[in-house]
Amino acid sequence: MLGVCYYPEHWPEDWWAEDARRMREVGISFVRIAEFAWSRIEPEPGRFDWGWLDRAIDTLGAAGLKVVMCTPTATPPKWLVDRHPDILPVDEHGRVRGFGSRRHTSFSSRTWLRESARITEEVARRYGSHDAVAGWQTDNEFGCHDTVLSYGPEDVAAFRDWLRHRYQTPGVLNEAWGSVFWSMEVAGFGEIDAPVAAVTETNPAARLDYWRFASDQVAAYNRMQVGIIRQHSPGRFVTHNFMGFFQDFDHWPLGEDLDIASWDSYPLGALEKIAADDAERVRWARTSHPDLAPFNHDLYRAVGRGRWWVMEQQPGPVNWADWNPVPKPGMVRLWSWEALAHGAEVVSYFRWRQAPFAQEQMHAGLNRPDRKLSPGGAEATQVGEELARTGALPATAKAPVALVFDYETAWFHRIQPQGQDFRYAELAFRWYGAIRRLGLDVDMVRPGASLAGYRAVVVPSLAHVSEAAAQAFAASDAALLFGPRSGAKTRDFRIPDGLPPGALRHLLPLQVIQVASLRPGLTEPVTGGGLSGTVQRWREWLETDLPALARFADGTPALVGDKGRFYLAGWPDEALLHGVVADLLGRVAGLPLTELPDEVRLRRRGDLTFAFNYGDTEWTAPVPDTGRYLLGGPVVAPQGVACWRTA
Amino acid sequence: MLGVCYYPEHWPEDWWAEDARRMREVGISFVRIAEFAWSRIEPEPGRFDWGWLDRAIDTLGAAGLKVVMCTPTATPPKWLVDRHPDILPVDEHGRVRGFGSRRHTSFSSRTWLRESARITEEVARRYGSHDAVAGWQTDNEFGCHDTVLSYGPEDVAAFRDWLRHRYQTPGVLNEAWGSVFWSMEVAGFGEIDAPVAAVTETNPAARLDYWRFASDQVAAYNRMQVGIIRQHSPGRFVTHNFMGFFQDFDHWPLGEDLDIASWDSYPLGALEKIAADDAERVRWARTSHPDLAPFNHDLYRAVGRGRWWVMEQQPGPVNWADWNPVPKPGMVRLWSWEALAHGAEVVSYFRWRQAPFAQEQMHAGLNRPDRKLSPGGAEATQVGEELARTGALPATAKAPVALVFDYETAWFHRIQPQGQDFRYAELAFRWYGAIRRLGLDVDMVRPGASLAGYRAVVVPSLAHVSEAAAQAFAASDAALLFGPRSGAKTRDFRIPDGLPPGALRHLLPLQVIQVASLRPGLTEPVTGGGLSGTVQRWREWLETDLPALARFADGTPALVGDKGRFYLAGWPDEALLHGVVADLLGRVAGLPLTELPDEVRLRRRGDLTFAFNYGDTEWTAPVPDTGRYLLGGPVVAPQGVACWRTA
Amino acid sequence: MLGVCYYPEHWPEDWWAEDARRMREVGISFVRIAEFAWSRIEPEPGRFDWGWLDRAIDTLGAAGLKVVMCTPTATPPKWLVDRHPDILPVDEHGRVRGFGSRRHTSFSSRTWLRESARITEEVARRYGSHDAVAGWQTDNEFGCHDTVLSYGPEDVAAFRDWLRHRYQTPGVLNEAWGSVFWSMEVAGFGEIDAPVAAVTETNPAARLDYWRFASDQVAAYNRMQVGIIRQHSPGRFVTHNFMGFFQDFDHWPLGEDLDIASWDSYPLGALEKIAADDAERVRWARTSHPDLAPFNHDLYRAVGRGRWWVMEQQPGPVNWADWNPVPKPGMVRLWSWEALAHGAEVVSYFRWRQAPFAQEQMHAGLNRPDRKLSPGGAEATQVGEELARTGALPATAKAPVALVFDYETAWFHRIQPQGQDFRYAELAFRWYGAIRRLGLDVDMVRPGASLAGYRAVVVPSLAHVSEAAAQAFAASDAALLFGPRSGAKTRDFRIPDGLPPGALRHLLPLQVIQVASLRPGLTEPVTGGGLSGTVQRWREWLETDLPALARFADGTPALVGDKGRFYLAGWPDEALLHGVVADLLGRVAGLPLTELPDEVRLRRRGDLTFAFNYGDTEWTAPVPDTGRYLLGGPVVAPQGVACWRTA
Repeated sequence: MLGVCYYPEHWPEDWWAEDARRMREVGISFVRIAEFAWSRIEPEPGRFDWGWLDRAIDTLGAAGLKVVMCTPTATPPKWLVDRHPDILPVDEHGRVRGFGSRRHTSFSSRTWLRESARITEEVARRYGSHDAVAGWQTDNEFGCHDTVLSYGPEDVAAFRDWLRHRYQTPGVLNEAWGSVFWSMEVAGFGEIDAPVAAVTETNPAARLDYWRFASDQVAAYNRMQVGIIRQHSPGRFVTHNFMGFFQDFDHWPLGEDLDIASWDSYPLGALEKIAADDAERVRWARTSHPDLAPFNHDLYRAVGRGRWWVMEQQPGPVNWADWNPVPKPGMVRLWSWEALAHGAEVVSYFRWRQAPFAQEQMHAGLNRPDRKLSPGGAEATQVGEELARTGALPATAKAPVALVFDYETAWFHRIQPQGQDFRYAELAFRWYGAIRRLGLDVDMVRPGASLAGYRAVVVPSLAHVSEAAAQAFAASDAALLFGPRSGAKTRDFRIPDGLPPGALRHLLPLQVIQVASLRPGLTEPVTGGGLSGTVQRWREWLETDLPALARFADGTPALVGDKGRFYLAGWPDEALLHGVVADLLGRVAGLPLTELPDEVRLRRRGDLTFAFNYGDTEWTAPVPDTGRYLLGGPVVAPQGVACWRTA
Repeated sequence: MLGVCYYPEHWPEDWWAEDARRMREVGISFVRIAEFAWSRIEPEPGRFDWGWLDRAIDTLGAAGLKVVMCTPTATPPKWLVDRHPDILPVDEHGRVRGFGSRRHTSFSSRTWLRESARITEEVARRYGSHDAVAGWQTDNEFGCHDTVLSYGPEDVAAFRDWLRHRYQTPGVLNEAWGSVFWSMEVAGFGEIDAPVAAVTETNPAARLDYWRFASDQVAAYNRMQVGIIRQHSPGRFVTHNFMGFFQDFDHWPLGEDLDIASWDSYPLGALEKIAADDAERVRWARTSHPDLAPFNHDLYRAVGRGRWWVMEQQPGPVNWADWNPVPKPGMVRLWSWEALAHGAEVVSYFRWRQAPFAQEQMHAGLNRPDRKLSPGGAEATQVGEELARTGALPATAKAPVALVFDYETAWFHRIQPQGQDFRYAELAFRWYGAIRRLGLDVDMVRPGASLAGYRAVVVPSLAHVSEAAAQAFAASDAALLFGPRSGAKTRDFRIPDGLPPGALRHLLPLQVIQVASLRPGLTEPVTGGGLSGTVQRWREWLETDLPALARFADGTPALVGDKGRFYLAGWPDEALLHGVVADLLGRVAGLPLTELPDEVRLRRRGDLTFAFNYGDTEWTAPVPDTGRYLLGGPVVAPQGVACWRTA
Repeated sequence: MLGVCYYPEHWPEDWWAEDARRMREVGISFVRIAEFAWSRIEPEPGRFDWGWLDRAIDTLGAAGLKVVMCTPTATPPKWLVDRHPDILPVDEHGRVRGFGSRRHTSFSSRTWLRESARITEEVARRYGSHDAVAGWQTDNEFGCHDTVLSYGPEDVAAFRDWLRHRYQTPGVLNEAWGSVFWSMEVAGFGEIDAPVAAVTETNPAARLDYWRFASDQVAAYNRMQVGIIRQHSPGRFVTHNFMGFFQDFDHWPLGEDLDIASWDSYPLGALEKIAADDAERVRWARTSHPDLAPFNHDLYRAVGRGRWWVMEQQPGPVNWADWNPVPKPGMVRLWSWEALAHGAEVVSYFRWRQAPFAQEQMHAGLNRPDRKLSPGGAEATQVGEELARTGALPATAKAPVALVFDYETAWFHRIQPQGQDFRYAELAFRWYGAIRRLGLDVDMVRPGASLAGYRAVVVPSLAHVSEAAAQAFAASDAALLFGPRSGAKTRDFRIPDGLPPGALRHLLPLQVIQVASLRPGLTEPVTGGGLSGTVQRWREWLETDLPALARFADGTPALVGDKGRFYLAGWPDEALLHGVVADLLGRVAGLPLTELPDEVRLRRRGDLTFAFNYGDTEWTAPVPDTGRYLLGGPVVAPQGVACWRTA
């Protein structure tokens, strides 16, 4: 199904009914509203103006649309900030981050928690039982604009409490952090500062704990809102709209408090951030990389325990990347179907109509500011029509391959990259893409979750292997592949006794005795076992009796393992990664592989197989029988989509 | 005529008379003094030491030199700052910008305004009627070192007053700014902050208004000084020395308060900042780009309504760019004649003698620190001799082509570049150069000014088309060419109703329905109408019934128009720009074109034509009759100048 | 001899004896301890816990090891900072640099001076006469993490006192600094601020004096500690561990207060900082550049007046560079022997065992965290065995060539680079390497020190030539070569009367009348005298009657001189530098030259000659008689070392 984000407060009231009618024409079922409307809902402290919002919801409902209602806590109004400047966040240099945009709040401000609960309750009470309200979104894009981490006095006070709870005594903390190093020991929790603004780098264990603490604060904040909403709005779902490639807080526990996960999919804007270099940014500028949105689709399907939406789908050029190209014709449709193929319940476009004012005026909508459909709007309409023809889509099945994705690992490697380009998100993205290039579907899995039912499991890196994770690996009979720096740390950011891979040594008896980070231009060739390629960015030296499937030029092992469990001692280039993954999935796990071009991907949903062509040349699908096609046919044009029924 | 900047306070008094005598030998008529001399004029609060300055001016006057006297407000002394720290500016992070260099003042500080008026009046009273004083310069390089925008409490208070005056009520402001977006609405002007230091980008309309406000403060400050000077110094001109490629305040209104505009021409140092890339910086390192100084000459001729000087002419290497090469031999002479060719009344060198101390000790002068002429001094002497031979130069005539240049457009595009390399000043510079490469003279024109008498008018970009500007375009029968993002915004930084080009749609019935910014490496080919090339950085999609002269590869129009009015839907590369401009000026406007090499430019002054050769090879002028040459002859050597009488 | 850095406080006490025993096995004689142990020595204000440290020293001593004891002042504990926040340093933006890492102190804080004296005295009293204590190290790496310069109120107050002492009256200061420029004059020392945080650059003379002041503060701080130690620990040496390529304070005077100089040698990490470009960083990534450690060895040999150690020798990959590769096998041994060849008394590895916790957990040690020898540990063991075989090494003789190295010149050129890539340390490094490529040994010399006994002296640049330096040059009969910007400034950061090279004009009658800085891509060819090459980065124009040995393309002299004294008017590329230096050392000074490959270096110690091969191919030494080899033989393998007795 389709949805859209709508801001009735941005438009004359006499446009609303027409907007609602035209939404239905596009094929839209859900409308998300009000996440930035606090100044209109409560124009003065304690004075609420519900009239306009009542009428907006009624208008939408009368048109047969379902409303996703939001709490407006991403944009507290000026009067609140002026009365309570203590809600403002503080950056790592001690500077207050002020009013003037959004997310100007700290998750640890007690005033802010009180005010958030108050406005949440007001909105939830008002609309919790409204017939048109189908569900709720808490806040908007937690953490956007680097707002997970704040360093003001209330943040530090809350951190101290968090540490007291975790460590009980300063001695335990000193021991866990290794505070004896550089005389950093404390005699009480009150001596702890935020791990910033020191002369040089601060203790990595302290930084990791600060990240864990901040992540917990986000989860607690969301849980507070969810609790209030559930109390006042029985029978409605609650979601939150996460962001792509965002690891500043741990999404796994927060997802457990939601009914549905959702995320905001901006394939072109996000490409600017994730690509390895400018050549890659140029290559995929107008389509995005074919693994970029899917990586996040599969991740949020897991965060939502199967239930997920795209809450904001890019409908044309955006405004916030360094450069903002126009998607190639067909891409808005392609991205929409791709989300559905990966199991999305709803694809909701951001936004109904491009705003002609304020910060996002250069962000396209389904409609232009002059109330005509934009090119993206026309493509969304096509999707709506196609969806009407195809009818309800089948349920998503478990994929044959799992990829273990871990937020803490992102923090570990950001705190201690050891080489400037060791980026966990990119590593996971490349491994994910290598599997998809072989025509297979992937499930993302939280470390420690059961791996039952998977034929193969890849772990691009898992800095700390918890007891639960180790047990899940041990219990699995899947082909297992671990990447560099797996098991490299304990929970307390220490090198494990017995060296890395720490807790994995029961599975993989080896020791990482030495590591190198490699600046651009340095690579180390790897050969053996039919593989060839190099490692770049990162190399490890292993001591082990495990068989070596491939070796470095100096003879030390690069890929080791047996009994279906393998360890890769570096960051592989594309050729090596492809070879290693193909060997794992094909030879070891016995999965059927389909070598796809760089620009083409397949994805199954129930008995349907979808194909997506990101390239400039046609691709011919392996199923010639046109009768089996629900969308397109065997020849998939550039930016085209095909969908056929699996025999 | 020639001039020079002189600092008697930097040298032993017994050098002054000799300096004055040697200035005359070089051919100098005007001497600018005292713009940084406050600590010598008023060594303690209220105690003035006029003696040395009296003697300096008398000495210069006795030698037959005319003095351009300055107000010393660019460098308030330490005692003033210590007594009144409230005069100091504040940066966007809230940090006070302290004493220790220059321009450590805020244009909104009431103390500073009072102290400025006081010292201006003291100086103007003392020297207003001195025989040797021919004119005045207010302050020095307004805005240098990012000092237009300041963010302290007095700045914000003055901004609030400015907003009160402009909008009358907060409701009008909220509507104009689109403050409903992200709940940014205010209930009173006292809730307005400076649009900085928020969590992410602030409202573009607020930022534009802050820039307008700050620009108005500069103009008011200058007007205050001009008023005091005129009161005490009847019959003398007043000027200000602007900077090249500087758009932080609007020079058009400030110019109206002056008798003469002047600017400080540093062709090599400025190249470092304006060039598109390092290759261009290397290519022109020792000559500068042949359009760089001329662009500013033509601009300041317009700002001064025909009367203008070069107040500071680079005489050799400078000290303030990232790298500071030595100009090729001949360039100081070439630059001097070039300024005169573009209509300068006076070319004044900075400075008489290189100071051996303090911040600018690596900045060349006409003399070396050891009192001998520098290489640049020798070239200036040659210019003086040549000027003595040529006698008074004829008046500058109106050019056939006008280029509309707009400071607000620079602010619009800096606030909302949408692509990181959309730089208005560079765009205007490239368009200007394309006309000059065809051998034509250019006048710069303020938007809204009459276009009568021009055969062609180019508008590289004009973000907001005011009513006056629209009327001037409509009233013109010149060939008109508009560039990308023209008419893209309303006065209040909104997308116009009916989409861009807004008010231009009466002239050019089209709609810009979509835009793309293109990162380096992305280009879009354009063909048709004999044109070929690409757009880069920026592309637009037009909907229009106007004829398309050239199209993009997807068939959408790239250059449209008829009846002599055209719109170019992107940032053209050099080939496309050359073709479009040549077609407009030649075919449409019927002007005679002279295709010049990259390195050669022509310029007329009355019945004289000048040629300037920036290149490494000889260039042969089209006039073989050596009898018509006032300078040089038909063969113009590298770094050479020629001047002939037009038949 | 060998040493090691050890942190008993990081390990269980029951490991200590075993560690000590294994140190002896590796061949270690000295153990440095306790420089970061304040929080264990004095866990609460005034309560000392000596027991553990007594036992640690006793354990080491019992194993036959000698202890280098440290003052723990690089890491004051949290309780001290919380009680005395006035000890914290302040950055140039006015932000306090807080607790959480190390060196969080200002050298001008009176509280800090008092506390430093107190803890130094406590430690010195406790262990000054301990049998196992052979010597002392003051503090640790003065200035690390940009801690020489601090800008808090106490820093400014101390600076004012320093200025009062230097200039006596504000008038003298104003004159020396050229404060009349930009009205920067002051009426009293109390008006002086730190030369930071102004609107644009501050007075270079003020900045230079701030650097001198700060450098003096470091020296005074060290002297205070040395005095206390000498009082309580008769007969023991005192050293400090300096850093490589670090010029933030003047090491020459500080070295005079020490018995032995020592430095911390991290060839790979330092390469990341000193290399000219990424290509050079890639080329030498796993060996470092063959002149990098030697340059510092020779410098610290001079700072220690002949006596010096490597206090921290890189034993494997480190953690603190942007990328941290693993040294090629053999390099730890090579670096160790190289230090000994340059005259080191002791090579002490950092650290005994890699810490599995806190900031430096990715820094290798001689042992892995699991208590096994690391690859570097195995190489150190080999060095220990080899040393046992070779026995005591002969004394280091005076080298034939001297290089004058000056810390103030580094400050001059950093304050006023004039071109962004004019880096004094790199210039000196290249000149040093040009001599070593010719097979010769080099001594570093402080400006003003006697040059007697040298056959050739090179001065890559010497911004201010003091009277003492000028006399030393005049008194020398060595071949003398001066590089660009020598004599360019007076002591007060002014251009000398009569122009550069100022005081050198008695030796070299020439004037530098003009200079250019050249951005990358700009070069100026130089030919003549059998030389060919270019200058890059920097070029000067000379006026002189001296013979020109080589000229620029425009005919102006590039290399001038006679009577064995020469001046090079630019920054030479590799070819030109090689030619100029070979001509000076060979033709002029008559020294025997050995052209070495890029990757090979020789070094003599007494009657021993060492060869070091940094390359990938074998090198054959000129001495075929294998009987003369103490280490290796005539064929030196990649990463190999050879040592033979000079005939």
